[in-house]
Amino acid sequence: MYRTHTCGELSLKNIGETVTMCGWIQTIRKFGAIVFIDLRDRYGITQLLIQEEKLPDLPLSNLGREFVIQISGQVAERSNKNLKIPTGEIEVIISELKIMSPSAIPPFTIQDDTDGGEDIRMKFRYLDLRRATMQKNVLLRYKINKAVRAYLDQHHFLDIETPFLIKSTPEGARDFVVPSRLNQHQFYALPQSPQTFKQLLMVSGFDRYFQIVKCFRDEDLRADRQPEFTQIDCEMSFVKQEDILNMFENLIKAVIKSVKNIEILDPLPRLSWEEAMWFYGNDKPDLRFDLKIINFKKPNHIFLNYSAASSIVKKIGFKVFEDAETIVAIAIPGAGDYSRKQMDELTEWVKRPQIGMQGMAYIKLQTDGQIKSSFEKFCTPDTLKDMIDRCKATPGSLILILAGKEEKTRKAMSELRLEMASKLGLRNPNTFKLAWILDFPLFEYDAEENRWVARHHPFTSPKPEDISTMLHNEPQIANPDAYLEHPYYNIKANAYDMVLNGNEIGGGSIRIFQKELQEKMFAALGMQPEEYQHKFGFLLNAFEYGVPPHGGIAFGLDRICSILGGSDTIRDFIAFPKNNSGRDMMLDSPSTIDSKQLTELFIQLKS
Amino acid sequence: MYRTHTCGELSLKNIGETVTMCGWIQTIRKFGAIVFIDLRDRYGITQLLIQEEKLPDLPLSNLGREFVIQISGQVAERSNKNLKIPTGEIEVIISELKIMSPSAIPPFTIQDDTDGGEDIRMKFRYLDLRRATMQKNVLLRYKINKAVRAYLDQHHFLDIETPFLIKSTPEGARDFVVPSRLNQHQFYALPQSPQTFKQLLMVSGFDRYFQIVKCFRDEDLRADRQPEFTQIDCEMSFVKQEDILNMFENLIKAVIKSVKNIEILDPLPRLSWEEAMWFYGNDKPDLRFDLKIINFKKPNHIFLNYSAASSIVKKIGFKVFEDAETIVAIAIPGAGDYSRKQMDELTEWVKRPQIGMQGMAYIKLQTDGQIKSSFEKFCTPDTLKDMIDRCKATPGSLILILAGKEEKTRKAMSELRLEMASKLGLRNPNTFKLAWILDFPLFEYDAEENRWVARHHPFTSPKPEDISTMLHNEPQIANPDAYLEHPYYNIKANAYDMVLNGNEIGGGSIRIFQKELQEKMFAALGMQPEEYQHKFGFLLNAFEYGVPPHGGIAFGLDRICSILGGSDTIRDFIAFPKNNSGRDMMLDSPSTIDSKQLTELFIQLKS
Repeated sequence: MYRTHTCGELSLKNIGETVTMCGWIQTIRKFGAIVFIDLRDRYGITQLLIQEEKLPDLPLSNLGREFVIQISGQVAERSNKNLKIPTGEIEVIISELKIMSPSAIPPFTIQDDTDGGEDIRMKFRYLDLRRATMQKNVLLRYKINKAVRAYLDQHHFLDIETPFLIKSTPEGARDFVVPSRLNQHQFYALPQSPQTFKQLLMVSGFDRYFQIVKCFRDEDLRADRQPEFTQIDCEMSFVKQEDILNMFENLIKAVIKSVKNIEILDPLPRLSWEEAMWFYGNDKPDLRFDLKIINFKKPNHIFLNYSAASSIVKKIGFKVFEDAETIVAIAIPGAGDYSRKQMDELTEWVKRPQIGMQGMAYIKLQTDGQIKSSFEKFCTPDTLKDMIDRCKATPGSLILILAGKEEKTRKAMSELRLEMASKLGLRNPNTFKLAWILDFPLFEYDAEENRWVARHHPFTSPKPEDISTMLHNEPQIANPDAYLEHPYYNIKANAYDMVLNGNEIGGGSIRIFQKELQEKMFAALGMQPEEYQHKFGFLLNAFEYGVPPHGGIAFGLDRICSILGGSDTIRDFIAFPKNNSGRDMMLDSPSTIDSKQLTELFIQLKS
Repeated sequence: MYRTHTCGELSLKNIGETVTMCGWIQTIRKFGAIVFIDLRDRYGITQLLIQEEKLPDLPLSNLGREFVIQISGQVAERSNKNLKIPTGEIEVIISELKIMSPSAIPPFTIQDDTDGGEDIRMKFRYLDLRRATMQKNVLLRYKINKAVRAYLDQHHFLDIETPFLIKSTPEGARDFVVPSRLNQHQFYALPQSPQTFKQLLMVSGFDRYFQIVKCFRDEDLRADRQPEFTQIDCEMSFVKQEDILNMFENLIKAVIKSVKNIEILDPLPRLSWEEAMWFYGNDKPDLRFDLKIINFKKPNHIFLNYSAASSIVKKIGFKVFEDAETIVAIAIPGAGDYSRKQMDELTEWVKRPQIGMQGMAYIKLQTDGQIKSSFEKFCTPDTLKDMIDRCKATPGSLILILAGKEEKTRKAMSELRLEMASKLGLRNPNTFKLAWILDFPLFEYDAEENRWVARHHPFTSPKPEDISTMLHNEPQIANPDAYLEHPYYNIKANAYDMVLNGNEIGGGSIRIFQKELQEKMFAALGMQPEEYQHKFGFLLNAFEYGVPPHGGIAFGLDRICSILGGSDTIRDFIAFPKNNSGRDMMLDSPSTIDSKQLTELFIQLKS
């Protein structure tokens, strides 16, 4: 070993000891004949002191930042203590110093407030990872990994590896494929998830499975998406939805306790998908704050359970609103005195292409008692009053109203809700609000192909009460205009998502385990028997030999890390991420390959 | 939860309790009006008893093996106890029974001595995995995984994920490649190992890294090789070879203690590569037994350290032997009275194409005191006596002798040694003999391309004392016939393999961390600067910014599982393995993909 101690462990109790240490030079400071070096490693920083006169042969003038050195010396008490760091009460008085590896001047400074831009830091990722923040992120990820394993092991889950070279069954996202050299013109695919394998493990009788595993999706990349990502993948047999919810909310609570030391005692709130959409405008609501959406109107074809909802405004009497499919509002306490400029800015914000509304209406309940509205000219005072009442708005509140087509308007209001919460400082990264979203629709309608698509995936079971609806109706949609009336439209899934601070961190379902129902599902998704036999014959076969009822969940580890790490960027929690074009800037990959490789794989390039 | 208890937990202390259980029907036995069912799950088997008269409505006649049922009933003491299983003292008297999932008749019996052949079991892997042996294998693998993690965590190693979509840098084995859709005509490669990434993590300052990670090699498959396999991959900074050996022999000792409850107290024996080759004929000797090879002759160009070896026979005087490059023997106690038939069989064995010798000589030291030899006519009694002395052979021993070209003969003797040990029952699968093999040559000579190839990999450092030889000589081999005289031929590597019962279970090295030396290595392997910049520029760049001395090791998890599981077949320890043609028989993969997929990837098929 080249060292006796790391840079994070010496303290007053080591005074007088002779130590040998290795690390990187963080800083060099010269005061007359005395030189201070801050020596850094993964464990901390230790101050070194060199009395130049006593050591005239030291190669001091050659030293620079990021050099790796090995030193020996004696631990001494510091006169000028730094109580902010664990080693701040001591220093090491150097008697020997050896350069292990010199360093060129780094392309950016290795410190938290670095001067390096994103691109250069991606290219020199190995230097970026030296920064304390990045080291902390990597450590956090490991701690989460450990906490997950400890909890699952305690509950008798087995980590079982599933294969990476599998079969291409594109359904949903695109597969990455791998040409086979030994099987001419055939391809493997990389798994989008180990879904079918974990189900087969249930068929095999391994009733509790987990894996922390890389998955792959060849999608058009958006900001903060990675072509390869890590799932905490879990599956259980002989369980109902309730068992899964309990098991896995306790997993996440255990993780948060372990890495943040925050104990969440209450059971997680549970919202139906309809509730989430109705009150928050999306299925991954940020519950760190309230600001519920008030629905002045109920659109026709969704929200079965909200016909008598208390927020509906009866007489609107204002044509733009009357004509709108949806009118939604939020009432924001403390914003009733927003200035015209602030209101204009908000209006501009909802008109941005990403939001796409044509305008925004408002009612200000000023603290001076006055009520001002952008549309008071167009409606009766009764309507205005009704709206304020429906919002239960108190003086000093600002009511923002959006109206238009259901999907777009609700989405815009959901975004506006988050924007206002950010403005009001309600999105504290150190607060963690979890919830379950339940009772998703099983299908979505695909107008282009006039068929159903699985909202979750084709292995999700309908609710027990909907199974017979699914089995005893044909999935074909005779009249595309009346798809809303097809019995499949209202089938609910036995599925659940876990949300944390406005992010979906996990999702799963109770699975179909009956061959007949699984075949019906494939048919509903537009597959012919030959197609689903070719793609999923192995699973249908397995379903003939005694299958336990089972279900599971998969969590996005990258996202959980970033939220618990207080960041919006998953890239900061992946040691070697790719950029938004799927490129590894450090490796300069993907790259061209030899024509010999292509020939061996029986493929050629094509424009 | 569909059950209150598993099939492995009930015992006398549960007598009288009402329980609900789920599982698979292992057997049904009918005795008059009483039916016994053995119900199986991952945790065990519980006997169920049905009194048919009391439950006339039970669907008994529909039941069959492998049906999944849910039952309720009362725990009772058995009259006919089976003390071989933990639940053998009780049975459950059924009051309710429900079929959860019926089963067709399985294609082979779900029991340890199954009637299913390899192919059918691979196709129905989910059924094969139900057998107790396979369940035990999967569990063993998880236990090993846990033991590895516990040890490494305790020693401050961090599990850090490295990417799977990397850059193709073929050197050694072939890469699997993945066409990129977003980067036309470019390809990712799947990692053969995370080698360069773990080195970059050292450059980043994460001084102790590990990962249990899938790796990929597109090789022509031999029996018991998998295109995807799992490594326990580790790396450390600021360490010398001695530190690594200590750290990781203790890891494997901890694993063996944890899963086999066998404590290995002594430090691992250490053999140089030369010793291993000299005494055992290969670099992964099985040390469960002695049977060392005796070298009657020393071949010219290897075994620097064995010029005065005590086994050399001075005067052979027998032309076939005189002309042979190598003469090697083993002396086998207890086989001196082998019959002519047994000797003929052994001779046939060495003549098999896999061994490829033309014949075998022997000296029998019969227990009656007579000495018989296959070549006594051709040599003097002195030579015979000298040979017996060199072998230190005692009466009752059989000396087997092979002669011929060095490489082939030594390999054949190595195989013969194992064969004799098997015959003599010396290869006990419950004995575990570990050793380190050290001091490998850094290079091998590639006659075809007249250049050096890295015996381990291009990142392995030469021994400290050989670094200057490497730096101050040019790698080019001016005269191919005299490659033995090139200074690179005798450079030793700072590398180590761990062997267990005749298998290499892990290997690693101290790495090159100096840019100049790394460039020299690439040049020695025949790469031009443009080529190594293109392939490994990121690593060479990293070596400019302060690199800690570092080294590591990678263990083959699949192999460790199979050895500790007492099997020769790694496939039995992989949940979903591929066959010898790289096919997943269950998925029927690889398979063709849509032409749409090919088009999107800018490739086409070619004959």
